[in-house]
Amino acid sequence: MIITLTTDFGLSDPFVGIMKGVILGIAANAELVDISHDIRSYDTLEAAFILESAYRYFPKETVHVVVVDPGVGSARRPIAAAANGHRFVAPDNGVLSFLLQNATAYHITNDRLFLKSVSRTFHGRDIFAPVAAQLGRGLPIESVGPQIFDAYRKALPLPRVDDGKIGGAVLTIDKFGNVITNLRREHIPPDFRIRMNGSSITRLCASFSEGKPGEVFAIEGSTGFIELAMNQNSAAERLKVERGAEFEVETSSANQ
Amino acid sequence: MIITLTTDFGLSDPFVGIMKGVILGIAANAELVDISHDIRSYDTLEAAFILESAYRYFPKETVHVVVVDPGVGSARRPIAAAANGHRFVAPDNGVLSFLLQNATAYHITNDRLFLKSVSRTFHGRDIFAPVAAQLGRGLPIESVGPQIFDAYRKALPLPRVDDGKIGGAVLTIDKFGNVITNLRREHIPPDFRIRMNGSSITRLCASFSEGKPGEVFAIEGSTGFIELAMNQNSAAERLKVERGAEFEVETSSANQ
Amino acid sequence: MIITLTTDFGLSDPFVGIMKGVILGIAANAELVDISHDIRSYDTLEAAFILESAYRYFPKETVHVVVVDPGVGSARRPIAAAANGHRFVAPDNGVLSFLLQNATAYHITNDRLFLKSVSRTFHGRDIFAPVAAQLGRGLPIESVGPQIFDAYRKALPLPRVDDGKIGGAVLTIDKFGNVITNLRREHIPPDFRIRMNGSSITRLCASFSEGKPGEVFAIEGSTGFIELAMNQNSAAERLKVERGAEFEVETSSANQ
Repeated sequence: MIITLTTDFGLSDPFVGIMKGVILGIAANAELVDISHDIRSYDTLEAAFILESAYRYFPKETVHVVVVDPGVGSARRPIAAAANGHRFVAPDNGVLSFLLQNATAYHITNDRLFLKSVSRTFHGRDIFAPVAAQLGRGLPIESVGPQIFDAYRKALPLPRVDDGKIGGAVLTIDKFGNVITNLRREHIPPDFRIRMNGSSITRLCASFSEGKPGEVFAIEGSTGFIELAMNQNSAAERLKVERGAEFEVETSSANQ
Repeated sequence: MIITLTTDFGLSDPFVGIMKGVILGIAANAELVDISHDIRSYDTLEAAFILESAYRYFPKETVHVVVVDPGVGSARRPIAAAANGHRFVAPDNGVLSFLLQNATAYHITNDRLFLKSVSRTFHGRDIFAPVAAQLGRGLPIESVGPQIFDAYRKALPLPRVDDGKIGGAVLTIDKFGNVITNLRREHIPPDFRIRMNGSSITRLCASFSEGKPGEVFAIEGSTGFIELAMNQNSAAERLKVERGAEFEVETSSANQ
Repeated sequence: MIITLTTDFGLSDPFVGIMKGVILGIAANAELVDISHDIRSYDTLEAAFILESAYRYFPKETVHVVVVDPGVGSARRPIAAAANGHRFVAPDNGVLSFLLQNATAYHITNDRLFLKSVSRTFHGRDIFAPVAAQLGRGLPIESVGPQIFDAYRKALPLPRVDDGKIGGAVLTIDKFGNVITNLRREHIPPDFRIRMNGSSITRLCASFSEGKPGEVFAIEGSTGFIELAMNQNSAAERLKVERGAEFEVETSSANQ
C-alpha cells in the first residue's frame, strides 16, 4: 500500500522523516513515496498543481498526504477526500483544489486517530500522518469524521479569450527552466506569435531537441500544458520570466 | 524492519544511494527512511540534535545510522548503541550525544560484519551500513564488539540563569526561518521581552497564524523548544540572526 | 526487487515521484532507491560516472534506470542492457558508457511495455519506468527488443603520460569540495608535486583527518580515484578548480 508525501518542509529539517516514522509505526507495510518537499513555503496553489500533475500516475487506492499548512493550529479544518479511486489527506486550504470537484470530502474530527498529544505547530506529524496511515491500513474514509460539501477551492488562472486574442499566464517553471503556461494545445493557432521581453516565439516543436541553438519555442509538455522551452537551455532565464507573468498569443493575421 | 539514515553527504553524490545498496544487499526487507542528508558538513552537534528530534517518532526496534564523520579512517571508534528500544550505529564523535545517557554502547570491532575491503575514507559504506543491516536482520547488538562506558558526548548549550535574567542561544534555524532556541516554555515569564537586532519580541503565540503581519513572536515549537517566528515569513531573516547567537530574556518588571 | 533511479530531474518537480508511481503500478513490490537526481542538466557523462561509482554496491538483479535525456522524443534509441548481473534501462546517449564494454544491449522497441500514451517529452515516465518495472517483475531482457552492438559510448578523459610527465583531469567535485581526478594510485610517484593555482600538493594521506590545517593533500578516494582534499575544508574552493580542469603531476627529481 502506497502513501505519497507532498510538503513545503524541504529535506534539511527532520520533519519529513518524522512523518514517515509516524506512518510506519501505524502502517508497517506502507511504501512511502515523495512527490515533492520543495513546494514554495506556504504556497497552497503550487502544491495543488504538483499534486494534480502527479497523483494519477500512482495506482488506485494510493493515499496522498499534502502538508502545506500556513494555518496550522488555527481554525482551518483537516480534511480527507476520495476522488478517482485515490485518497487524500490535507489541510482545508486549497491544496486539494483540483480534485475536489469530483471528490467526496470529510472533515477529520476523529481524534482517536491522532497522536496522543497534538501540537499546534506540526499537524503533519500529529494528525495528517497518522490519519493517512490508518486509511492505508484500510480504515473506511467515513470514519475520519462527517462529510462536508464546502471544502475550500482555489482556481488556476484560466486563459483569457477576448476579441480573438488569447491571454496566458505562467503557472510554474520547472528545473530545466521550461516555462509552463496555463494554455492548452487548442490555444495555439498555426500562425501564433508570443512576444516576451524582446523574444518572439513562433514555432511549436514536438520535442525539445527540435529547437535550434538559442531559439525559444513552444511545446506541449508532459502535463498537457503548453511550455515555452529551449533545447538544453533555460527558457525562463532567456525570457527573464517568473511564475504569474501574463502574456498574449497573437496571430500573424491579426498583426496585419 | 526500518533503518533510518542521517548524514552530511547531501543528495547529489551517490554516497547515500551506495549505503542503501549495501544495506539492501544484506537486509533485503529493510525499509529505508532518510531523516536528513543536509547536516552541515562535519557538524556532529547538528546531527545529534536532528537525530534526537526525530528518532522517537519511529517504531521501537528501528536502527538509526548516523554518518557525520570528519575523523573517518583515524583512531575514532565506530560504535553501536541501544537506547529506549532503538538501535544506533555511528562514529564515536558526539553524533549520539543526547542518547548516550540512557544507552548501552558498544565499540564495533567485529570486522566479519564489514565489507570485505574497508577503505579509510567511506566507513558509511564499509562499516556503518553493513553493521546496521545486520542489526536490522536480528544480530544481537553485543555481537558487534565489547561494551564501552566512555562514548564521547557533547552538550547542547544550556540556558544561563543568573541574577534573575535568562540567557538563551539559537540552536538552529529551520527551512521556514523559524529560530529554534535552547529555551523551554518555563523560561518565558508572562511579561517577557527579547530584544534582538532592533526587534522586540514580547508575545507568546500558540500557533503561527496568530502572528500579525511583520510581527516576530515566540512560540513553543514541535520539538518542545521555544522558537522565534513570524506568520508566513522568515524570523531569521528579519532578526538577522544565525545559529549560535546568544540573547537575553528580560522581564518588563526587571526593566523598571 | 530493487529499482534504482538516476536522473537530472531534481527533486522539486514531481517528475521523480511520477516515475515511481508508474513503477509501483506495475511492480508493487519494487524497492525504489534514489542514486542521484542532481546530475547536471543534460550531462550524460556525469550520469555515467555516478552510475558506475554506485551500481556495483547493489545486489545482483537490481534494475537501474537512468534518465538524463536531452534527446527525448528524437531518434535516439531507448535501450536496456545486462552487465555483471545487473540490468540497466536508459536512453542510448552515453549514460551507460562505462558498462557497455561488458554488457549485452537491446534496443527497446516493444511498445506493449510502454504507457498507453507516449509523449515526446517524458520518456522517463512513458517508457523507461514501465520497462524497468517489467524487468523487475521478471520479464526476460530479450523481450524488450532486438539486441544491438553499436550502443553509444563516451570515454572518460584518460591520464596523459608523456616524457615521464603525467597529466590529469578533474572528473568531478563532491559535496565536501573534494576534487576527484582521473588518476589512480599508480600515477602518484613517491616524490610527486601537483601545482594548482598557487597551491602545491606534495603529500599523499591515507585519511582525511591526517591533513594539517590549511593543507591540500592527495588521497585515494572511495571510488578508487585520487582526490585532492583538505581536512574539514573544501579543496575545490581553495584551489579554485572546476570540473574538467587539467593539471600535471611533477616529480621532485624531474624538477631538478
